Amino acid sequence: MIQATPEMVHEAYDRIARYAHRTPILSCATLNARADAAVFLKCESFQKTGSFKFRGACNAVASLVAKQRSRGVYAHSSGNHAQALALAARIHGIPSYIVMPENSNPTKVAATRSYGAEITYCSATHEARWEAAERVGKKTGATLVHPHNDPHVIAGQGTACLELMEEIADLDLVLAPVGGGGLLSGTLLIAKHRVPQIVVIGCEPEGADDAARSLAQGKRLLDFVPHTIADGLRTPLGENTFKIISDLVDRIVLVSEEEILEAMRFIWERMKILIEPSSAVAVAPLLNGSIEIKGRRIGVIVSGGNVDVTAFFAHLEAIA
Amino acid sequence: MIQATPEMVHEAYDRIARYAHRTPILSCATLNARADAAVFLKCESFQKTGSFKFRGACNAVASLVAKQRSRGVYAHSSGNHAQALALAARIHGIPSYIVMPENSNPTKVAATRSYGAEITYCSATHEARWEAAERVGKKTGATLVHPHNDPHVIAGQGTACLELMEEIADLDLVLAPVGGGGLLSGTLLIAKHRVPQIVVIGCEPEGADDAARSLAQGKRLLDFVPHTIADGLRTPLGENTFKIISDLVDRIVLVSEEEILEAMRFIWERMKILIEPSSAVAVAPLLNGSIEIKGRRIGVIVSGGNVDVTAFFAHLEAIA
Repeated sequence: MIQATPEMVHEAYDRIARYAHRTPILSCATLNARADAAVFLKCESFQKTGSFKFRGACNAVASLVAKQRSRGVYAHSSGNHAQALALAARIHGIPSYIVMPENSNPTKVAATRSYGAEITYCSATHEARWEAAERVGKKTGATLVHPHNDPHVIAGQGTACLELMEEIADLDLVLAPVGGGGLLSGTLLIAKHRVPQIVVIGCEPEGADDAARSLAQGKRLLDFVPHTIADGLRTPLGENTFKIISDLVDRIVLVSEEEILEAMRFIWERMKILIEPSSAVAVAPLLNGSIEIKGRRIGVIVSGGNVDVTAFFAHLEAIA
Repeated sequence: MIQATPEMVHEAYDRIARYAHRTPILSCATLNARADAAVFLKCESFQKTGSFKFRGACNAVASLVAKQRSRGVYAHSSGNHAQALALAARIHGIPSYIVMPENSNPTKVAATRSYGAEITYCSATHEARWEAAERVGKKTGATLVHPHNDPHVIAGQGTACLELMEEIADLDLVLAPVGGGGLLSGTLLIAKHRVPQIVVIGCEPEGADDAARSLAQGKRLLDFVPHTIADGLRTPLGENTFKIISDLVDRIVLVSEEEILEAMRFIWERMKILIEPSSAVAVAPLLNGSIEIKGRRIGVIVSGGNVDVTAFFAHLEAIA
């Protein structure tokens, strides 16, 4: 199998630029004052389907050969990758088949269906998801687009950092959340290629610290039970992402659930933008003193804005 | 007393441009599809202090003569005007005295204090607020900056629509929420001056429909008890704003509490930006079929993004 490379990130950019939003890079005086640094948020929350996942999915779909295209793509996903792959497939006029666990958020299921995907439900376990996905793949002859281990997906995710570095010169440090590792791997590939001395830190919840422990032990940890509100980061690293991250990352920092919520609320209240808990994981180290940032120029990959606000609006209805 | 004019809106722009953010104008393909129109949101949620109120307060403070400046400014406010005036005063190096009801949101009190205002608490009634404010005014010799009736405040609020119309050509229609009427008055002055045939509609909650009823009866209605989640729109019109709105507005549309929350949630979920309920009041008519918008180019003044999200984060902490 091919391995993702910095060149592939550039190719991905050329391939997806006509479909993906060039998302805004936002700053906030209050955040800069609090961090005592110059912070630039690359806001993939404003990306199509509400997360960076569209970049990777779109690159993977656009990279298919003609024979593959006609049979479509499949994946299992409870949320962001499902929507991203369904939209990427629709844009390219090919079918998509998504396996979603029965307990998926109904809003995300509806969005995925609205993009034209054929949805198959399964039980919520890791094994049930893969089994159902394999059945769908065999039945349809579609091509699997893995949410984080696929080299084209990894390359696509790197385009967010590529855009960030094109617009913001002289970054000292880039922070990105790490779950399955696709976003962090793509970020590492392009950041270290452009500026070898740049520091790239992966940010991970204490309650899903498989990347930190896998790196410490030198082997990929698979049997862990995640417990974190950062629902996008509950996945173990893939083989390919483990390799890239092992080779290139400067450090993984862990943040507590309390710090995730504090960072998320800070961004909501001060910047008036919705970011999801997984994004807040990469903001938290700016607020809790866990890394040396004073006076630095720091890029943060804000992964997405898909938050279930049902409970909040139920509260507002109750008080209205 | 002077009356606000379109020329004063231009003067206000020149006066405050160095202090206020030129806020972004955002569009959303899903919103356009739903409304079957081209919609441009002028997002004052990203203004300093989180609402358009900074524009008017800043213009009023910048318009003071030297003798007034030394004695500072005062007002009563439970929220957005308090923060806006306090920051405008601090920027101009003058004292501010704000009377706030005891039941004010602690976050807004803290923000107001952080901008250097001297805060006086009072009971939550309209009368108690004015009595306390008058005492503060007499004691300090400061100048009152009325939240919506002051002509400099009205002119300042109009600068949001001025920026909108400078950037977006050929608008057919502008929507703005109406509470005390400062924002709608400033919007009307500049919009009708630049494009006489433009349609400007004020948007008001059914539960605080004093503007609609005042216009219908031809006299300002003062004795009403507002009941709406749109906390910025619970105020009656002022004398000056009633005059301007009576003269210039095309129509007031009313929206229900349910429609306010639906519009607010639509913008949160689809655009990933926080807007407050008062802002959603001006989005709701795009979604509920109450006005003829098909194929039109529509500007919406999104008044602010100051939402109390305490309940939501308490919910997230509970499930974390």
